[in-house]
Amino acid sequence: MAVKAQVLYDFTAEPGNNELTVKEGEILTVTNQNVGGGWVEAQNSRGTVGLVPEDYIEINPGSTQASSNTQATQHIDAHNQGYTSSSENSQAVNGNEPWSATAWSNNNPVNNWNQAEQEPVGNNGSVYSFDEEWDDDSDDGKSTGGYGGSQVEEGGTMQRAGGHSTMKLSLNKFPGFSKTPNPEVYLLTKHIAKGDERLPIYTGEVGPVWLYPQTQLDCVVADPKKGSKMYGLKSYIEYQVTPNTTNRPVNHRYKHFDWLYERLVEKFACALPIPCLPDKQVTGRFEEEFIKMRMERLQGWMSRMCRHPVISNSEVFQLFLNYRDEKEWKLGKRRAEKDEIVGVKIFSNIDPELPELDPAQVEQKYEMYSQFTRSMDNSVKELLAVGHLHWKRCTGPLQKEYRQIGKAFQNLSSVFNTSAYPRESTLTEALTATGKTYEEIAEIVAEQPKKDLHFLMETNLEYKGLLGCFPDTITVHKAAIDKVKEADHLVVMNKISQQDKLIMEKNLSTMSYALQAEMNHFHSNRIYDYNRLMQFYLEEQVKFYETIAEKLKKTLGQYTTM
Amino acid sequence: MAVKAQVLYDFTAEPGNNELTVKEGEILTVTNQNVGGGWVEAQNSRGTVGLVPEDYIEINPGSTQASSNTQATQHIDAHNQGYTSSSENSQAVNGNEPWSATAWSNNNPVNNWNQAEQEPVGNNGSVYSFDEEWDDDSDDGKSTGGYGGSQVEEGGTMQRAGGHSTMKLSLNKFPGFSKTPNPEVYLLTKHIAKGDERLPIYTGEVGPVWLYPQTQLDCVVADPKKGSKMYGLKSYIEYQVTPNTTNRPVNHRYKHFDWLYERLVEKFACALPIPCLPDKQVTGRFEEEFIKMRMERLQGWMSRMCRHPVISNSEVFQLFLNYRDEKEWKLGKRRAEKDEIVGVKIFSNIDPELPELDPAQVEQKYEMYSQFTRSMDNSVKELLAVGHLHWKRCTGPLQKEYRQIGKAFQNLSSVFNTSAYPRESTLTEALTATGKTYEEIAEIVAEQPKKDLHFLMETNLEYKGLLGCFPDTITVHKAAIDKVKEADHLVVMNKISQQDKLIMEKNLSTMSYALQAEMNHFHSNRIYDYNRLMQFYLEEQVKFYETIAEKLKKTLGQYTTM
Repeated sequence: MAVKAQVLYDFTAEPGNNELTVKEGEILTVTNQNVGGGWVEAQNSRGTVGLVPEDYIEINPGSTQASSNTQATQHIDAHNQGYTSSSENSQAVNGNEPWSATAWSNNNPVNNWNQAEQEPVGNNGSVYSFDEEWDDDSDDGKSTGGYGGSQVEEGGTMQRAGGHSTMKLSLNKFPGFSKTPNPEVYLLTKHIAKGDERLPIYTGEVGPVWLYPQTQLDCVVADPKKGSKMYGLKSYIEYQVTPNTTNRPVNHRYKHFDWLYERLVEKFACALPIPCLPDKQVTGRFEEEFIKMRMERLQGWMSRMCRHPVISNSEVFQLFLNYRDEKEWKLGKRRAEKDEIVGVKIFSNIDPELPELDPAQVEQKYEMYSQFTRSMDNSVKELLAVGHLHWKRCTGPLQKEYRQIGKAFQNLSSVFNTSAYPRESTLTEALTATGKTYEEIAEIVAEQPKKDLHFLMETNLEYKGLLGCFPDTITVHKAAIDKVKEADHLVVMNKISQQDKLIMEKNLSTMSYALQAEMNHFHSNRIYDYNRLMQFYLEEQVKFYETIAEKLKKTLGQYTTM
Repeated sequence: MAVKAQVLYDFTAEPGNNELTVKEGEILTVTNQNVGGGWVEAQNSRGTVGLVPEDYIEINPGSTQASSNTQATQHIDAHNQGYTSSSENSQAVNGNEPWSATAWSNNNPVNNWNQAEQEPVGNNGSVYSFDEEWDDDSDDGKSTGGYGGSQVEEGGTMQRAGGHSTMKLSLNKFPGFSKTPNPEVYLLTKHIAKGDERLPIYTGEVGPVWLYPQTQLDCVVADPKKGSKMYGLKSYIEYQVTPNTTNRPVNHRYKHFDWLYERLVEKFACALPIPCLPDKQVTGRFEEEFIKMRMERLQGWMSRMCRHPVISNSEVFQLFLNYRDEKEWKLGKRRAEKDEIVGVKIFSNIDPELPELDPAQVEQKYEMYSQFTRSMDNSVKELLAVGHLHWKRCTGPLQKEYRQIGKAFQNLSSVFNTSAYPRESTLTEALTATGKTYEEIAEIVAEQPKKDLHFLMETNLEYKGLLGCFPDTITVHKAAIDKVKEADHLVVMNKISQQDKLIMEKNLSTMSYALQAEMNHFHSNRIYDYNRLMQFYLEEQVKFYETIAEKLKKTLGQYTTM
């Protein structure tokens, strides 16, 4: 049976890309659902076939489904589709490069999620129905213990870190630069931001800035607890998340964080970089160290989200932190999933109370941001690479070498002890102490990366993730500039009116303010983070060297001065 | 023409070794001069053929030589023989393992020296005649810059250090354990130590000890100067040696040190371990670093010799430090070369004013000394090996890594500088300073081994050299015990008298006291040296860690506290 789909939003095909221009409300026949990359091949009523963005349409698989249940229907279908990509995915995971781009570019990570979230037939309305599904975060990742720990293979960090570097949805819906979300729909419409969703931008000391709340939201992710379901057959970890506003903890599993992440990407990724969550994993899921590491990274991610004035204030984020019971959570989830202000539409909420910007200026700024984030990305990667090396050196050869030095001194002491010479003991005792001190130094050296390098690596990994989101975000903006550049030509061709052109320029200016506010948010956070990071790192390094000096001084005191 | 030889000292063959018993004054026919290992095959007047120690006879190559010039004659012959072994030797030197045992076990290192020292015919009596010979230390060694310097290949240290580990003459005259200098001659003779050559042994707090002088002799090796001869065609380095007794400097070239070494080995090596001189070298002989290194090692060697009460008091050593003019030097050299109290005969000068020791006790002590020196040799080698590794790590990968860390911080700072964000400068300046600090740390880490590890390595190399001499020395003593053990049997067989047996036991006791005094000297020096060494090493290590901590603290102060 032919699969039908209804177009949710207007979409204008880019020439030469086999795309199909569609209008809101139009009915299409889906000719190929497995194109991948967030695209679907469809035929319009005039018989033209082309690609349409998957999230611009709503698929109706046959007439048996009630039209009032389209959302769930879509999920079921996505679920079916999800199976295929899921099996492909697990193949990639079991390969040699579990964290390579392949493993991450599974066509529809959201579908895996939805697969779990769909309500089983006949179980409608049950409070537990959506919480006793199969634990789907159990088979699409791999355990990782650290950057240089013995469990991590060479290059493991870089590959895993690679997973951080792009927003999942960007891979899904904007594969490469050729299929950027088309900002045309937004650009051509005159927008008046609604009261409660309005996102104002002001001029701060540093230029355009978001409106920051008086009290900064923060939360504590803590107290991981093992839970089980299916009569103990499946188990999971639940984290306690306590926001500083209510001081009332809510419980969330990793999959809930993942759901939140998907919602944030859907809603904000065109305007704000949404860094990936920490990786999922397969084995040793309840291993203490892994849970600790995941919790730490979830904390880092949540703190970063809390610090963002737009994200922290969003309905979905507030729901995640503040829901009072399962019912509220469930209803809130449904509402969030039906949110229509997603993709480029987010810009319609943005309200810069500032003079309109000249497109040429805008373009120049974008070039600068693009250049900066690319350079910083390289620099962060360089730091991660050398940090990784240093970690391995400290826990590997250096530890071994200091142990050997320690052993050599102790062996010499043992030999001296056999001399039967009567004046031996002071030297042999001091030599033994020296040997033991170098053995202690070996352990100090091997433990040190966990104390200082760890935080440096974690923060840089976070930044690597963030920076990896910028190219996609900036590409949306660049596409908008291109559209506006075409505007003059379109006016001449009578395709748009002069009025349309002015609206486009106004909207471009709004987008530009959004990006500037976001860049300023990024810079301010970056300066704060790196200041804190470097101070912490250097403090720990000073302690490290001082501790060793102190230990050696103590052992030196055991020798007789001659 | 048959080569004749006159026997200089009595020699009793060891049964089963193809040796020939000869008496002083006897004339032999040399049947094979190229046996090697310090032995010559000869036939006595009764027609018996066997091996005789090369240095127990004086070879007369035909009747054309004047008998009054036998010493010079021997040298000429040794010279001829030397050519062969010298060419073999340079082959070994140019091979892959220039410092392997092969390179050192050239049959007759003394001959190379004598080759240079012989006076040219017709130039007799010229003051400069013995100083303008070809510079023979130019082709039997190789330049070495350090333990872990870039010029030294992997394992270079260990191989070179191998050169330190045995007395040359022991390889020459006592090849392996099968041809130990036979102590029988000494054991069977009743000795009364002469006044000025007498070497008394007393009981000190630690047991038998040498007689130590009230003021310890020492000297300073300094001020290396380049000299030339043959109208500038050949050049050499002359070192200034100033003893603390006269405070009057004398000049010596490396070859003079080498001559002294050979004399000391000849005279004392049966009783005292005489460590090898620092290595010779071929290339870059006038390179500053090499000269500095050689001078430092000659200083170490001379200081050790000065500290030895027997060596420092010997005529040849005093000559080396105190000669007033070329004539005195030349005459002294001749006398030293004609010294008859060499090899096992040195024990006849030893006069322990102590009760005679039981042979069983003596044997037990030898076992202990043997065990101790072997264990210490292993332990010293272990320390050298790990020191070598550590040196390479510090000057290689660690330096590189700290440089990379420094570069990564500086690069990040450069990127931050391009942000155009107005609040950047404090962080970027601090980051740049941090990067530069890590670059400084890279250099500190790479320079550190020269500051502390160098002395540790040098001292342990010296000890490796010393310890390598003990097996040969102890073997002489063990051979003496074996002879004394045979004594009862020989008395029964009527080969020696009961009186002879008592003399043997007395002489064995004297030898044992000599070794005990020497071991106590060794232990006392060892404790002093390792105490000083470890204190110096630890002091430098403390400074190293404190310096780095201080530098990091300073750079930490540049960050704003947030």
